[in-house]
Amino acid sequence: MSDESQELGITESKSHKPGEWYAEVVQKAGIADYAPMGGFIVTKPRGYALWERLQDELDGRFKETGVDNVYFPMFIPESFLEREKDIVEGFDPEVAWVTHGGHDELEERLAVRPTSESIIAPFMADWTRSHRDLPLRLNQWCSVVRWEATETKPFFRTKEFMWQEGHTAHASDEGAWNEVWTRLGQYEELYEDFLAIPVLRGKKPEHDKFPGADTTTTVEALMPDGKSVQGGTSHHLGQSFAEAFDITFVDEDEDEQTAYTTSWGLSWRALGALIMTHSDDQGLVLPPTVAPTQAVIVPIWQEDTKEKVLEYAEEIAADLEEAGVRVELDDRDERNPGFKFNEHELNGVPLRLEIGPNEVDDEEVTLVHRPDNENVVADRSGLVESVESNLETVYDKLYAAAEETLEENVREADSPEEIMGTIGKHGGYVRVPWCGDQACEEAIKEKVSAEIVMQPLAEEGGETTGVPEAPNDDDAECAVCGEPADEIAYFAKSY
Amino acid sequence: MSDESQELGITESKSHKPGEWYAEVVQKAGIADYAPMGGFIVTKPRGYALWERLQDELDGRFKETGVDNVYFPMFIPESFLEREKDIVEGFDPEVAWVTHGGHDELEERLAVRPTSESIIAPFMADWTRSHRDLPLRLNQWCSVVRWEATETKPFFRTKEFMWQEGHTAHASDEGAWNEVWTRLGQYEELYEDFLAIPVLRGKKPEHDKFPGADTTTTVEALMPDGKSVQGGTSHHLGQSFAEAFDITFVDEDEDEQTAYTTSWGLSWRALGALIMTHSDDQGLVLPPTVAPTQAVIVPIWQEDTKEKVLEYAEEIAADLEEAGVRVELDDRDERNPGFKFNEHELNGVPLRLEIGPNEVDDEEVTLVHRPDNENVVADRSGLVESVESNLETVYDKLYAAAEETLEENVREADSPEEIMGTIGKHGGYVRVPWCGDQACEEAIKEKVSAEIVMQPLAEEGGETTGVPEAPNDDDAECAVCGEPADEIAYFAKSY
Repeated sequence: MSDESQELGITESKSHKPGEWYAEVVQKAGIADYAPMGGFIVTKPRGYALWERLQDELDGRFKETGVDNVYFPMFIPESFLEREKDIVEGFDPEVAWVTHGGHDELEERLAVRPTSESIIAPFMADWTRSHRDLPLRLNQWCSVVRWEATETKPFFRTKEFMWQEGHTAHASDEGAWNEVWTRLGQYEELYEDFLAIPVLRGKKPEHDKFPGADTTTTVEALMPDGKSVQGGTSHHLGQSFAEAFDITFVDEDEDEQTAYTTSWGLSWRALGALIMTHSDDQGLVLPPTVAPTQAVIVPIWQEDTKEKVLEYAEEIAADLEEAGVRVELDDRDERNPGFKFNEHELNGVPLRLEIGPNEVDDEEVTLVHRPDNENVVADRSGLVESVESNLETVYDKLYAAAEETLEENVREADSPEEIMGTIGKHGGYVRVPWCGDQACEEAIKEKVSAEIVMQPLAEEGGETTGVPEAPNDDDAECAVCGEPADEIAYFAKSY
Repeated sequence: MSDESQELGITESKSHKPGEWYAEVVQKAGIADYAPMGGFIVTKPRGYALWERLQDELDGRFKETGVDNVYFPMFIPESFLEREKDIVEGFDPEVAWVTHGGHDELEERLAVRPTSESIIAPFMADWTRSHRDLPLRLNQWCSVVRWEATETKPFFRTKEFMWQEGHTAHASDEGAWNEVWTRLGQYEELYEDFLAIPVLRGKKPEHDKFPGADTTTTVEALMPDGKSVQGGTSHHLGQSFAEAFDITFVDEDEDEQTAYTTSWGLSWRALGALIMTHSDDQGLVLPPTVAPTQAVIVPIWQEDTKEKVLEYAEEIAADLEEAGVRVELDDRDERNPGFKFNEHELNGVPLRLEIGPNEVDDEEVTLVHRPDNENVVADRSGLVESVESNLETVYDKLYAAAEETLEENVREADSPEEIMGTIGKHGGYVRVPWCGDQACEEAIKEKVSAEIVMQPLAEEGGETTGVPEAPNDDDAECAVCGEPADEIAYFAKSY
């Protein structure tokens, strides 16, 4: 038993060794394992259950807003990739190539999809004839492969990763922009209302756009170790893909027009951000929204009280289940309550219901919040409402803590030294006026491996635009080179 | 408009040219398209919606019976495949190989998974330590690749196909057998209670088992063209995989034991069987269970009746939607009712609700069944119940028609000539006594390309066994060679 407890517990510390701590939580909480090939992971039952809940949530939002799911082949002929030169240049060093089928060499190499624009776009061209066929909104849930030679970090850095990729065509530039904002807004909602992670929204600098895109918009989340995670991206592809793949349509005046396209994707990196943001030295912490088990009942008995305690616990479990709470009654005989407490803490169950003989006699239940162990004694009558409101409280606590971290970690700077010093000392974001020159980013990147992760977007008449926010001061100078600056940029280290 | 109608309609005949007819239905009903690489297809929105409904249904049954979903890498190192010699021999000629990542040749080739036993089994070994870890039940929904050089037939023959693959480990042979029957039973239920397709259950002959399996059980469905489709298979793998991959556990007496494993899979071939079984020369026909849209309302108006007809139709749509019916109100102005009728027939909407001014005045609705155009006039009051019961009637009609086809097409034979003659004339199944020698199957296969697709299973004490049913007559002779026969076999052509 002592061996098992040791095996169960997290030994690394989140604040001192965040990388080791993260790897340990992922493995010990049954989320993922390392595959035998570097760069690949195995997603275990509790990890996959999180992905399924996230999929359900996001897929529901997509379907409510006119998106159809499809499935395209996992292989893309080399000649198709080459039709969009930016794509092939962007992904060429990262493509896994299938060269043989059975014992025969293929006539043309097949790329394992790194992203599917170049196989989907020809079909979008075929399916788009009249303005009545637009907008065309397709999405697929699949895995993609990018052969990056980096250390494996589950959900953050893997050669194969799961994601959704949306691909749309529109009759007008405005239609495409609306699409870009709709999807970016849904990503933002997913993080803020479902994963309890506040995000910053903005655009990537011009030199860091998706290959071939006009504009790449992003939501960025700050991790507790001070690095930024690109949480999801929504690209305005302008007419470049439509021109390369002949996505044209006949408009209302019978004239042929070229469509505007977008693509947008969110990967299982969201699970990495989820785990890293909320979890602690006791293990996984999950918001009740995404937790496969929201509440666990741990009955505490002696031989002479077992019957009445269990009966009371079973009634409560039935009530909660009927109300739609994802509840588990842990009535295992072979484990003591302390062991169970630790195990459910490790696995990130948001609310623990403790029931002993006193609770039965007093017609009460003790509710314990994960992660802060706050105790609340609730009456048996009205328990369903108490559980629901305590689950909301747990969500709010997690969100508030993440929000506080974010708010405390957006700082300003006036010089390259100050940018580097701030990032070195605190991590987080450094907000600066920027001249727009990539060389200024490079100067910082070389020294502290921080880059421009995001530029907040200007608003016009209450609407977000695709243009970066300008500094308040008309005479603002770039924090790196001192030249006139008309854009704001956020520097940060990033995953 | 005439061009569009022509484009819309099915031109081939199911009875005369079943292959061409099937390809046309699949494309024109928006189910799938051919990809540019032979052997691959693109699953379009209406086709993917069918797969999603099937997934939901089967996944729900799995989860209720203790199965956890997981995700393993899509690549398997060559050396892993080689650990299970039967697997590597079975799939070697069909494996797509990744040899390069970016610009570099890989040290070891990676197979794109043809099936995942050899990458999952090592993890099952790692996760199985004590008898308390068993049974271990894992499943993944993914696509696999088998490089077979055959003509593409959407959902029936494609190099990449979508499926689920379940992999389980058990402490006892009996536990593994129970698993095999549970999953085969769920496949049977999926076909019979959800896809309206009756199936035959049995085992594959010894020489046609899954590579490495002790027993391969199958559900087989008869297609209208007289060929059998293997609808899903559930394999008892005995201890061969457990021995090859060291899946062992410590039992209650602290002794080390080797586990028993199973695997089971159902692919999107089920969609092919669905489309082929029920559809007709007007297009797709779908049981209401799986149909994304169960009922479509087509309002029929003149200018002066438009307002009242639409108002009535909208109320009805709202009522049905509230009751959980997947209903669509087709109120497009630019299409006339006849065009709409044809389009919804083509797309396989099971029930059409026609609403004209007379229906409004009489407080009635005309319900029209797909596929037989039977008309039912229903009262506005109690309409929800009428729609629900007519949807059930449509399901029952489809099932009854398929069942009649199956029952009429199981015939017996006493000689090779009779087997071949029957299959040549009628298609379907020929049930014969068989000696168990593969040579007897080969003799038939060479001449009429029919094979033993299934052997019904003996029952013992009301329970299915893994042993083939014996002929009623103790002196039965093999229908091919005349030697003593103690097994029953079903010959058929197959997909």
